[in-house]
Amino acid sequence: MYSLESIQHRISTAFTCTQFLNEPVKLYEPIIYTLDQGGKRIRPVLVLLACDLFGGDIEKAVFPAMGLEIFHNFTLLHDDIMDNAPLRRGKETVHKKWNDNTAILSGDTMFVLAYEYVAKTDPALLPDVLRLFNDTARKVCEGQQYDMNFETQTNITIDKYMMMIQLKTAVLIACSLKLGAIIALADPVDAENIYDFGIELGLAFQLQDDYLDAFGDTSVFGKEIGGDIITNKKTFLFLKAFEVAHEDDLIQLTHYFYSPEIPLTEKIFGVTRIYQKLRIDEYTRQEIELHFQQATRILDTLNVKEEFKEEIRGLSLGMVGRNK
Amino acid sequence: MYSLESIQHRISTAFTCTQFLNEPVKLYEPIIYTLDQGGKRIRPVLVLLACDLFGGDIEKAVFPAMGLEIFHNFTLLHDDIMDNAPLRRGKETVHKKWNDNTAILSGDTMFVLAYEYVAKTDPALLPDVLRLFNDTARKVCEGQQYDMNFETQTNITIDKYMMMIQLKTAVLIACSLKLGAIIALADPVDAENIYDFGIELGLAFQLQDDYLDAFGDTSVFGKEIGGDIITNKKTFLFLKAFEVAHEDDLIQLTHYFYSPEIPLTEKIFGVTRIYQKLRIDEYTRQEIELHFQQATRILDTLNVKEEFKEEIRGLSLGMVGRNK
Repeated sequence: MYSLESIQHRISTAFTCTQFLNEPVKLYEPIIYTLDQGGKRIRPVLVLLACDLFGGDIEKAVFPAMGLEIFHNFTLLHDDIMDNAPLRRGKETVHKKWNDNTAILSGDTMFVLAYEYVAKTDPALLPDVLRLFNDTARKVCEGQQYDMNFETQTNITIDKYMMMIQLKTAVLIACSLKLGAIIALADPVDAENIYDFGIELGLAFQLQDDYLDAFGDTSVFGKEIGGDIITNKKTFLFLKAFEVAHEDDLIQLTHYFYSPEIPLTEKIFGVTRIYQKLRIDEYTRQEIELHFQQATRILDTLNVKEEFKEEIRGLSLGMVGRNK
Repeated sequence: MYSLESIQHRISTAFTCTQFLNEPVKLYEPIIYTLDQGGKRIRPVLVLLACDLFGGDIEKAVFPAMGLEIFHNFTLLHDDIMDNAPLRRGKETVHKKWNDNTAILSGDTMFVLAYEYVAKTDPALLPDVLRLFNDTARKVCEGQQYDMNFETQTNITIDKYMMMIQLKTAVLIACSLKLGAIIALADPVDAENIYDFGIELGLAFQLQDDYLDAFGDTSVFGKEIGGDIITNKKTFLFLKAFEVAHEDDLIQLTHYFYSPEIPLTEKIFGVTRIYQKLRIDEYTRQEIELHFQQATRILDTLNVKEEFKEEIRGLSLGMVGRNK
């Protein structure tokens, strides 16, 4: 068994030692710029953790794990064009630093790279691995489309929102864990269970991200606070506030959200104050806890020695902002 | 052995009978719009022709062949954004009919679909098939980047141009043929030879496309004449003209190409007249013939009954605008 730290170190080393520079330089430079920024590398770490959990050789999982991380970064590149986002991980986004065409084509190339790395797996496992990855990639695209559709739709329910974040975020977390299980030759039932665990963990993780956008601390969050509020994202917080607000708060909330003349800092402050008054922070923490508990129940039933589960439990706690 | 017509019909049927509609509709509608336009379906037809040539079961090649056609259409969707092209096959491009975001995301989804169809192959062949497809997809992206780089570079040679069209166009033609060979369990040497044949055929095919842009007939070409001239593409015609032009013609050519105030019809007429004066049509036909002859020589040496080669010879002749 490997510790979480040693697995994080293994993934970090894998990216440091890999040379993505190639010709034409204009195509590969933005790819290196993106992959060098690091980030938390949660998805490849989950692949190795799951592989280790089921007694597999983590070295066999390193390349496919890198493939998932490259895929994740490809989706960020294209999402940032679609959302017209200026910053990512505190640095200029590719489409701002270069241009839209560069972000489209370097993104496409990262998608190919992702498949190249995912394909570096035992040939006997390739059909299963590829089926899982294709299914995941398609769902992530569908999730992004729902996210864009929701921007102009007014009848979004919390159920629809949860369906969207399941596609856009949770399936890739689940895919990471199942990929590790497949490479470790885990029992197919266990592989399905760790996938379901990943879905619940992924939902909790996205809700935590929503929570931090309004109630987080920039130094911990790594992004500016209030980004979702500025862009009128219909997150869990917003939808819950609309559900529980009485008439006055509803008018105030609508006013802050849809009056373009309000200065942004005032908008963030005003919306956050209503969220606090309506105890949206508590509702959100309850929803996070609900999915985290469902995840924990699935992990508890896994047919693996209890002490083997500790590293995944540790990372999961971190993903939803808890110490224990 | 199947006739070219029956293979074309098989591919056409495969697309007609396949239902790509799915949820969310906004994501899949542009995909159906694109795939329903048809086009000549040259790449999947080549897959089946090569499979048949080497005695394979063409039914085993239908899905992977569709994957290559979906991939080709994905590249067109993204290229049309990058080139800001308004029309494709006589209809509005996806980014014009919908918007850039739709073209980006529906394109990404088509890329996943392409992998899904390519993966529908004998599991024992999957590693080889996937390696070939990944390698091809990467090269097509690199070719598109060189194409964009060339727009702002002034030192483009005919050699560099041939390298670019090899990546952007010829490798996918070659990949189609090799894919058919792999599925037919052809000897690896034969699979390499048919790939090399495809490279030469692909180069001749792209040069024919360049030729038709200046010297073609709209009703046959399916596109407006002079598109490359309007957008100042440094095609073989343009580069050859610069190579052979004397001082006056050079000044004239530069004038027509780089004076934005010249009306477009006058520009097309003026440039074409210089091309004719410099006999660029003949130079281009010679270069097409050169690559077509190289392709033919490779096909001649293939260790397959001569009469089996007739259908591929027939399609190849059509691709370079010849009757025999």
